[in-house]
Amino acid sequence: MLKLYYAPGSCALASHIVLEEAGAAYDAVRMDLRAEDQRKPEYLAINPKGRVPALVTDRGILTETPAILAFVAQSHPAAHLAPFDDAYEFGRVQSFNSYLCSTVHVAHAHRMRAYRWADDAAAIAEMQRKAPQNVGECFDLIEREMFEGPWVMGERYTICDPYLFTLAGWLESDGVDPARFPKVLDHQQRMKQRPAVKKVLGSHRS
Amino acid sequence: MLKLYYAPGSCALASHIVLEEAGAAYDAVRMDLRAEDQRKPEYLAINPKGRVPALVTDRGILTETPAILAFVAQSHPAAHLAPFDDAYEFGRVQSFNSYLCSTVHVAHAHRMRAYRWADDAAAIAEMQRKAPQNVGECFDLIEREMFEGPWVMGERYTICDPYLFTLAGWLESDGVDPARFPKVLDHQQRMKQRPAVKKVLGSHRS
Repeated sequence: MLKLYYAPGSCALASHIVLEEAGAAYDAVRMDLRAEDQRKPEYLAINPKGRVPALVTDRGILTETPAILAFVAQSHPAAHLAPFDDAYEFGRVQSFNSYLCSTVHVAHAHRMRAYRWADDAAAIAEMQRKAPQNVGECFDLIEREMFEGPWVMGERYTICDPYLFTLAGWLESDGVDPARFPKVLDHQQRMKQRPAVKKVLGSHRS
Repeated sequence: MLKLYYAPGSCALASHIVLEEAGAAYDAVRMDLRAEDQRKPEYLAINPKGRVPALVTDRGILTETPAILAFVAQSHPAAHLAPFDDAYEFGRVQSFNSYLCSTVHVAHAHRMRAYRWADDAAAIAEMQRKAPQNVGECFDLIEREMFEGPWVMGERYTICDPYLFTLAGWLESDGVDPARFPKVLDHQQRMKQRPAVKKVLGSHRS
């Protein structure tokens, strides 16, 4: 049995949706980031990074969203959530998900968690000020160059879709108007109609 | 024939080494980041992100280091550079490489490229001041929790090794003493003895 450690409002939503889409047998353990559950010794023993998500498997613990998404897809092949049999197509999936984790999520993090990269209050405020511009530029690129339609990779729904859905859900609170990105906005609406997404969103209400 | 766009001093070194280790047929195109080659229209047509690396394949273009590394490994199976036949072991590889791209490389980037996240000179200076602390904490975690030895994933050399080698090569210029991380330092020395690494480093001299 898999066990996912997640927190409402975090990128763990993507892993949670993919577990549900895969039909995986799993438990979900809800963490409270405001109560700093992720810094408590019992959680640091699971994930020494002090972040969510973490996925406990019967062989060990996996962290980092792109890794968890691909692991769940590969270990539940009947759900066809990633094209593992085609190195180039799988490379496209990985390229998209790597961009989300290394650039888009990082751009967003400079609004709420700028203290990671500076201690000075004025510097933190300056990073927060610039975050909407960077997040907006990332989604411009996604909308213009990356999103194939109707799903991220084209005709087939993949592990890229729940990850995009998760990060795009932060646009409004990041001060970026989602209406600037019609394809991404339409994708959000269609994602919300999927039974797996509806079910998981219920567990992520704060 | 594959074509890698790279620049000396960039994380494209990891992709370059993996192409060489895989015995791939490829051309390498050297870019000059100081001359802003990566911002020129002809390169933006290849990679609209304006970054290196980019790998041109006969089916399309892949970007983002973790994606390129896994693509080269998967499309050159005889080199056994990643455990694709084992979802959990491949998940460990992905988890490590995702951490490098989303956290370690990002921590480093706040020293040289802090202008991405702030316009104000004082804020940029404050990020540069804190970068060595963050980079050091990342490598503490790698040394203590992640590095199995003798290679990153244990007995078998994988796509994680050239990527760690690349980012660890930036420690000194980031103001972090590599001697704090004996396993990583020993790994650096052993990597430099590999014929593929020796050959590729020759193309990356500035």
